[in-house]
Amino acid sequence: MVLAMSITFQTHPDQYRHWDLQVDGTIATLSMNVALHEGMREDYELKLNSYDLGVDIELADAVQRLRFEHPEVRALVITSGQDRVFCAGANIPMLCTSTHAFKVNFCKFTNETRLYLEDASERSHLKSLAALNGTCAGGGYELAMACDDILLIDDGSSAVSLPEVPLLAVLPGTGGLTRLVDKRKVRRDRADVFCTTSEGIRGKRAVQWGLIDALAPRSQFAEATRSRADALVAASEVESRGPGITLSALEPTITDSQIAYRYVTVDIAQDKRIATLTVLAPDSPQPTNAEEIQAAGEEQWSLRCFRELDDALLRLRFDHAELGLLILKTRGDGAAVVTVDATLASTRDHWLTQEIIGHQARVLRRLELTSRSLFALIDEGSCFHGVLLELALTADRSYMLEDEDEAVSVATSALTAEAWPACTGLSRLQLHYYGEPERVVEVLEQEGPITTLDADELGLITVAADDIDWDDDVRIAIEERASMSPDALTGMEASLRFPGPETLQSKIFARLSAWQNWIFQRPNAVGPEGALTKYGKPDRPQFDWRRC
Amino acid sequence: MVLAMSITFQTHPDQYRHWDLQVDGTIATLSMNVALHEGMREDYELKLNSYDLGVDIELADAVQRLRFEHPEVRALVITSGQDRVFCAGANIPMLCTSTHAFKVNFCKFTNETRLYLEDASERSHLKSLAALNGTCAGGGYELAMACDDILLIDDGSSAVSLPEVPLLAVLPGTGGLTRLVDKRKVRRDRADVFCTTSEGIRGKRAVQWGLIDALAPRSQFAEATRSRADALVAASEVESRGPGITLSALEPTITDSQIAYRYVTVDIAQDKRIATLTVLAPDSPQPTNAEEIQAAGEEQWSLRCFRELDDALLRLRFDHAELGLLILKTRGDGAAVVTVDATLASTRDHWLTQEIIGHQARVLRRLELTSRSLFALIDEGSCFHGVLLELALTADRSYMLEDEDEAVSVATSALTAEAWPACTGLSRLQLHYYGEPERVVEVLEQEGPITTLDADELGLITVAADDIDWDDDVRIAIEERASMSPDALTGMEASLRFPGPETLQSKIFARLSAWQNWIFQRPNAVGPEGALTKYGKPDRPQFDWRRC
Repeated sequence: MVLAMSITFQTHPDQYRHWDLQVDGTIATLSMNVALHEGMREDYELKLNSYDLGVDIELADAVQRLRFEHPEVRALVITSGQDRVFCAGANIPMLCTSTHAFKVNFCKFTNETRLYLEDASERSHLKSLAALNGTCAGGGYELAMACDDILLIDDGSSAVSLPEVPLLAVLPGTGGLTRLVDKRKVRRDRADVFCTTSEGIRGKRAVQWGLIDALAPRSQFAEATRSRADALVAASEVESRGPGITLSALEPTITDSQIAYRYVTVDIAQDKRIATLTVLAPDSPQPTNAEEIQAAGEEQWSLRCFRELDDALLRLRFDHAELGLLILKTRGDGAAVVTVDATLASTRDHWLTQEIIGHQARVLRRLELTSRSLFALIDEGSCFHGVLLELALTADRSYMLEDEDEAVSVATSALTAEAWPACTGLSRLQLHYYGEPERVVEVLEQEGPITTLDADELGLITVAADDIDWDDDVRIAIEERASMSPDALTGMEASLRFPGPETLQSKIFARLSAWQNWIFQRPNAVGPEGALTKYGKPDRPQFDWRRC
Repeated sequence: MVLAMSITFQTHPDQYRHWDLQVDGTIATLSMNVALHEGMREDYELKLNSYDLGVDIELADAVQRLRFEHPEVRALVITSGQDRVFCAGANIPMLCTSTHAFKVNFCKFTNETRLYLEDASERSHLKSLAALNGTCAGGGYELAMACDDILLIDDGSSAVSLPEVPLLAVLPGTGGLTRLVDKRKVRRDRADVFCTTSEGIRGKRAVQWGLIDALAPRSQFAEATRSRADALVAASEVESRGPGITLSALEPTITDSQIAYRYVTVDIAQDKRIATLTVLAPDSPQPTNAEEIQAAGEEQWSLRCFRELDDALLRLRFDHAELGLLILKTRGDGAAVVTVDATLASTRDHWLTQEIIGHQARVLRRLELTSRSLFALIDEGSCFHGVLLELALTADRSYMLEDEDEAVSVATSALTAEAWPACTGLSRLQLHYYGEPERVVEVLEQEGPITTLDADELGLITVAADDIDWDDDVRIAIEERASMSPDALTGMEASLRFPGPETLQSKIFARLSAWQNWIFQRPNAVGPEGALTKYGKPDRPQFDWRRC
């Protein structure tokens, strides 16, 4: 078992090893050309445009960068720079030699990246076209399904396929099954045939079944690609957006016990298996109107702070699997956070405001989908106000100090009601008060900061504790949590965090990921005789035939 | 590892070893008094009203029997016959020594039983009260949550609890997490505290948090139970129902290669890992009006056939885990099935008609939740008409013979549109045509039987094959399916069978069960140092702390 090395999620088109990004007016083209020998580890080769985490980090960067740096782009063409192959999906030897925890987190990240493509389509007028110039298998087809439009080359051999079940005894792990029947609405019996046909489906039948949107012969493929991209641009009703801003690499200071950014710090207590994530409120003047938002670019707190939080969460997921409990803290001036939110609320027709709020929403969803227990500590000096209140509402529980001078408070902002939907589509106040929807209104009607007794009365927090009890209450809760089985907590938190309706997104992370995690444990896939282990080897896998 | 013996699902109140059923006018009382030494296996004791499959089979029988034999009953009180203990949940030593496949199927059956209680409340005016006369832990509290009303004794010590996560490193496996936040709408942060507090919550706090509905001290407990049951009866607006009919035990003839009932036969091809399930249409006169339905009782085809199907599915699940593919066949006169459905449709205000249709719906949901591949073969002599068309629509795919004389057909009936909802709440036609809702209307508008070419044109079937291709097409499809990993197929089928909306029911079986299945594989629960293994032993479990 080869462990994953420490990973950086900061990259730039100039540094891409596996993708080429070209922007031409309102159309961008992202070509996949995976470098065979430049995987994140040296024990596998990235054949046939198969991908590992490093490839997907570049894809995620490209989508993010287009939204902030090239807001004028309306259509993104995703294609391949290799002949007769679009993408063979996730690299199998890489999966075979990865730990279970890495596999699960790898799948989660690739799922998030594909959801970001759909989010860009929905919120940023950035439509995407998968121009499949060759064979498209497994994760490759799952990437295509995350696009708005799929064009397949009609060359008599190139097919789309999800061969995971018949060939590898695992599931298409990146939302494929859900997107097939829930997004593309392929008839479920046809989906059954498709997902068990390892060679896939091509040509007219692929169109008839709804697996792809169009076909083009090789001689007309480039032209068809261009004309479908043009059509996506033409269908976009958005007015001019831009100019773009620059996103620079975050450069945290990393030691054994700390990851430190400008506004976000992660303190690691390895022996206690706890990370304390502290987020600072803005401590310098922030933009007050659309022009200043545009001018401030990546430096403004609303963007910078959440980019840091995003990076910190990914580092925790991949580099610190054994830290089971994240303590969420905030420090600084809550009023400054509410003011920043108010400025965003008053400039929501500005493209950059839309991107900033959308980015915050994505980071908050990354937080709620992080398999760690989350406790918010609302203590002296904290500022769970405005967008930072979302951290407390995302937490599995919150502790709030009853201080004598009533200096501790929480507060909503002009954006709390609906700006940052959870992955089920509900706001976090709606999730919190799922059984008492009238409370949502009551809390939003509160004027100014809500002190501990009021927050307790409103049911906005889990536990209110006075000075005398605080230390013991919090310490015991933390120790107890850190002593419980990480697996049981993962399953419990995934079940309790999302009451109410389900969306494509929540179905992917709940239903599909849970099944995939299960299968990634089963000897039929990963045992010495399992299909994943035996893939590419001469002998056939041996299955335990009992169904469960 | 002790394997489960062959199990019978046929029982009767006279034979109950663990429950006592008393019917008194409109109120029935079911008292749990689990016999310590009468578990289904001899290697564990059923202490503290803990249950194994045998206990739950009796509970399922009691709920079913009340609906058919005592339709006048409006309130069911579920309580315990033991002092100071209601129920300690599923028996842990039994779980520890069961195979993974048995654990998964055990949880599925107990989940179905609890859903049947909720179904009885919704469809049969049979409300239930959990009268918790003592401690109520784990599966005991999950049973209580399946009731409409929960009364807890207020004795200073009896609590409700879900101690699975902190004590056993598994999830409450019988819908507890979902019911907590989705049905009882307990605030999710409080649910987090509750599910990690092994001693549970009692008294006023349990009421405040919505974990229970009411409290009563010991001296008033019997009176409070009676008055709450009376209130459930009083709230029921239903007119007089009955008289009840008798349900006799089904007595299939069982050999190594066959399970044979009156209308249902299961042929077992052990070497090919295939079971062929053949359902016969009615072959004798059936009731034509409400009086005849009442008089025919358990003998009428609509009830008898589906009781047999239910029993056959349970036997397949528990006794034949290695049969991964069920071939669904029908034989007989399709018109007779459609006529029976029409009679049911025209008598839907009759209590027994309602029970018969509701029972068919439950059996069809049992089929769709059975983790086996389902292929329907619509061949010569078949009669996938009316309620039997639901079998083909439940299947993962269907093959229909193109015969020259057009004798092969399928047909809807007066009940197809909405009588048998799937566990997502959609009809099976709606599920089938999730992407083409206009087709549902088109199919329902067809008059009379739909022959193969038309069914193919309408997209009602997966594959149409003529005489020449039929044998090869079907044989190859079956062989291929039977060669794939059972685990991957389970996860795939669970994902593809349920496009569209989710319900409490589907969330339990998808999200929650998938996580529980995952956790039941993890060394932290079931490994030599896992919490389930170490439960009741002096040394503590050892956890792998990595989160995933």
